[in-house]
Amino acid sequence: MFSIQYQGTSTLMQKAINRYLKQFFLFGQSTVGSSLTLTLTVQDESGSLYLGVDESYTLTASSSGASLNSTTVFGAMKGLETFSQLLDWSSPSSTYLLSRLPLQISDAPRFPWRGLLIDSSRHFLPVSAIKRQIDALSYTKLNTLHWHITDAQSFPIYSASYPNLSAKGAYAPSAIYSTAEVQDIISYGYERGVRVVPEFDIPGHAASWGASDPALVVNCTKYNHNINNIPLDPTKEHTYEVLSGFLNEMSKMFLDAVHVGGDEIVFGCWESDPAVSSWMKQHGMTTGVELAQYFEDRLFNSVLPSTKQIVVWQDLFDNGVQIPNNTIIQVWSDVADLKTVTSSGFKGLISAGWYLNEQVPVPGSTHGDFMDTWMDFYLNEPTNGLTPEEASLVLGGEGCIWGEHVDGLVLDAMVWPRTVAIAERLWSSVDVTSTTQAKPRIQEMSCRLQQRGIGSAPLLPGFCLVP
Amino acid sequence: MFSIQYQGTSTLMQKAINRYLKQFFLFGQSTVGSSLTLTLTVQDESGSLYLGVDESYTLTASSSGASLNSTTVFGAMKGLETFSQLLDWSSPSSTYLLSRLPLQISDAPRFPWRGLLIDSSRHFLPVSAIKRQIDALSYTKLNTLHWHITDAQSFPIYSASYPNLSAKGAYAPSAIYSTAEVQDIISYGYERGVRVVPEFDIPGHAASWGASDPALVVNCTKYNHNINNIPLDPTKEHTYEVLSGFLNEMSKMFLDAVHVGGDEIVFGCWESDPAVSSWMKQHGMTTGVELAQYFEDRLFNSVLPSTKQIVVWQDLFDNGVQIPNNTIIQVWSDVADLKTVTSSGFKGLISAGWYLNEQVPVPGSTHGDFMDTWMDFYLNEPTNGLTPEEASLVLGGEGCIWGEHVDGLVLDAMVWPRTVAIAERLWSSVDVTSTTQAKPRIQEMSCRLQQRGIGSAPLLPGFCLVP
Repeated sequence: MFSIQYQGTSTLMQKAINRYLKQFFLFGQSTVGSSLTLTLTVQDESGSLYLGVDESYTLTASSSGASLNSTTVFGAMKGLETFSQLLDWSSPSSTYLLSRLPLQISDAPRFPWRGLLIDSSRHFLPVSAIKRQIDALSYTKLNTLHWHITDAQSFPIYSASYPNLSAKGAYAPSAIYSTAEVQDIISYGYERGVRVVPEFDIPGHAASWGASDPALVVNCTKYNHNINNIPLDPTKEHTYEVLSGFLNEMSKMFLDAVHVGGDEIVFGCWESDPAVSSWMKQHGMTTGVELAQYFEDRLFNSVLPSTKQIVVWQDLFDNGVQIPNNTIIQVWSDVADLKTVTSSGFKGLISAGWYLNEQVPVPGSTHGDFMDTWMDFYLNEPTNGLTPEEASLVLGGEGCIWGEHVDGLVLDAMVWPRTVAIAERLWSSVDVTSTTQAKPRIQEMSCRLQQRGIGSAPLLPGFCLVP
Repeated sequence: MFSIQYQGTSTLMQKAINRYLKQFFLFGQSTVGSSLTLTLTVQDESGSLYLGVDESYTLTASSSGASLNSTTVFGAMKGLETFSQLLDWSSPSSTYLLSRLPLQISDAPRFPWRGLLIDSSRHFLPVSAIKRQIDALSYTKLNTLHWHITDAQSFPIYSASYPNLSAKGAYAPSAIYSTAEVQDIISYGYERGVRVVPEFDIPGHAASWGASDPALVVNCTKYNHNINNIPLDPTKEHTYEVLSGFLNEMSKMFLDAVHVGGDEIVFGCWESDPAVSSWMKQHGMTTGVELAQYFEDRLFNSVLPSTKQIVVWQDLFDNGVQIPNNTIIQVWSDVADLKTVTSSGFKGLISAGWYLNEQVPVPGSTHGDFMDTWMDFYLNEPTNGLTPEEASLVLGGEGCIWGEHVDGLVLDAMVWPRTVAIAERLWSSVDVTSTTQAKPRIQEMSCRLQQRGIGSAPLLPGFCLVP
């Protein structure tokens, strides 16, 4: 018999133990084989989950017993995951084998922010599909779900302060996340060591805000042939009232960080709109960038809660818009931009080169099969070309699955196992770079994901026995 | 109330009617709205399904009634599918709308061979996944499932004559198609107007034949680092005995055509093997091509049943191996090769440019998102650059989803809706080429596929209401 000895008092830890006791024995309890006790010790049982929380653990095992030690419950979860990956089911003998004994593992991630962006605005993603991604993130030791909730196309989240935002802005009544569902997703992530970071993309990509309240957006005729071009109207007090009410309601639900977009603001849309350009003249502004500065100033100074870590896309930085220097900047257009960002003293996240929906995620690099793009992701090293000081400002990164061609039905296949390559890049040492060695490892992980209910694609010919 | 009036006696037709009565009303029976009777008339109720069977139909409808006329039951099935696509569910009013009245459609496909290749050797595909593809083929008016059953990696089909081929050659006992399952798949296809054409890839890609009987293959040390390189041993009588027994058993199950591969024979493997090269010398042969000629001569002259239409990959033709001129040649390496094939008087199928697993299916053509490759498929015109006489020898083509990175879990997302683009190319007139116009049409079809249980990807942002 196998047992886990845990004498702590954390229900969070106990829940994780119960979960992993199932993951360990997916093919049923084995009645043969020797017994083993895994002793689990956690120093700090407070269960606080935040950016930079200690995720390290040590795991030792021999034929006489195993022990897992960690500073936090989230480190212990990583150790339980590792232990689950060391247990191999032997189909012929109907036993589980812990075949690498004796083992001694001391493990910790290289980066504290290791995530996946999902997009529920281009297509509504059912709660079950989102939870499945959280499951897979925890299996691959990723720790952040960047939930790009609102964008131009739809507004799928309920707000008690402004219920019409989703009532009019969502695709359908069945395509709205209720407050209870949002809270459920957040706590589902928390229990698995996954921070759920919401993104409300403003002031660009904001057309869906206008569905219920057209005054919130600038529907400029010159650019509105593309719905992505429609920005908020930053000249109206009303806009800030709504933003303040909405964002404060949302911020109360989510943990420690909020992403407020800032990407692809179509300045020409503002500049070409008669009312906006007239307002700009009155306020001595000649460019949309100045208006963006005005918007971001008001956003940071009086709308956003000061208790949250704020994240934005690189565009604000690129355009010279001044933002508080503790803002995290997410780089999406070119991995080289991470140097500019960090050399300016900002903390940065990398997503450039990790766009899972793209046909050619790294320009110029192509392979036979689409699934082989995992190699591009794997070799996309965030700290390439950075000084040690710059590299120290890289918090990590995120794979991004933008939703134009992705809904709940195809999400898994487009994300997994290619995101395993990103997970390894963000966790393991910088010098772990052999795709030849990684391939069978990721294939093994893909099969494990399938066994746990994720629709992950195979990387190699073969057969995955699913219970 | 809606009803179909059919006074014929074909149970095949009646089954299709029953199926479509469900497809018409996926959101439940509507209790409101006017009544309509669809009168269905089929001239030839024999139910013979073969390459070139008449699939035409005429469909007329007005507020007073509708009628569907066809030569064969398979034409009638196409008409029922069209009718199902004209019925729109209106969610607000809970009614089905036939909104394009009056309508008069006279429809027939451009090409008789419109197919999809699936690969059950690199990964075993569950019967349910194969049937789901047959469903989707019938919804998109494709009519051929090219089932690439055996290849180097595994031998997943049971043979009563040679049970060890799968017992030793399959990935696992649960990864073998029983005879009953094969017959079930064939009849499932037949009932939906889909010919199931098996491929047994020989003499190359044959390593799995050797799993139970090593004497069948040449395991040349110079090339066996890649399992795909291992060919059958064409110098042994035993090889032809097994092939004859196996292929005749298989041919009895399948309908009118059998594909026998012929691609990527590694001649160097034969030439470098001492026993084979010695045999070649004794028989006055100096090149592997001569040995391939010997193999194909024996295959066509005394192994393959004369009642079946035989299909091969273009490689035999490219290498100058002489094959009977009624053999169908499938072009996979370059669409331009279809001209060489047809100008030599052979009938041809095109798959070049339609590899669904490839990252860049048409060299040099890339898009933002991977799913946008449907446009490459759509614009891949089989008759480009052909004379009318050459074009008359083009039977059609097939999308191919090779299985290295594809199993039952990700099959749908990799195949649909991109294969809808291929389906339209093969059915519609040569001058229907606007991707702008096709995009919303294919998006609508993708949603319809989702509503019918296929995990098709979206082509546009939006919401698909699934019952």
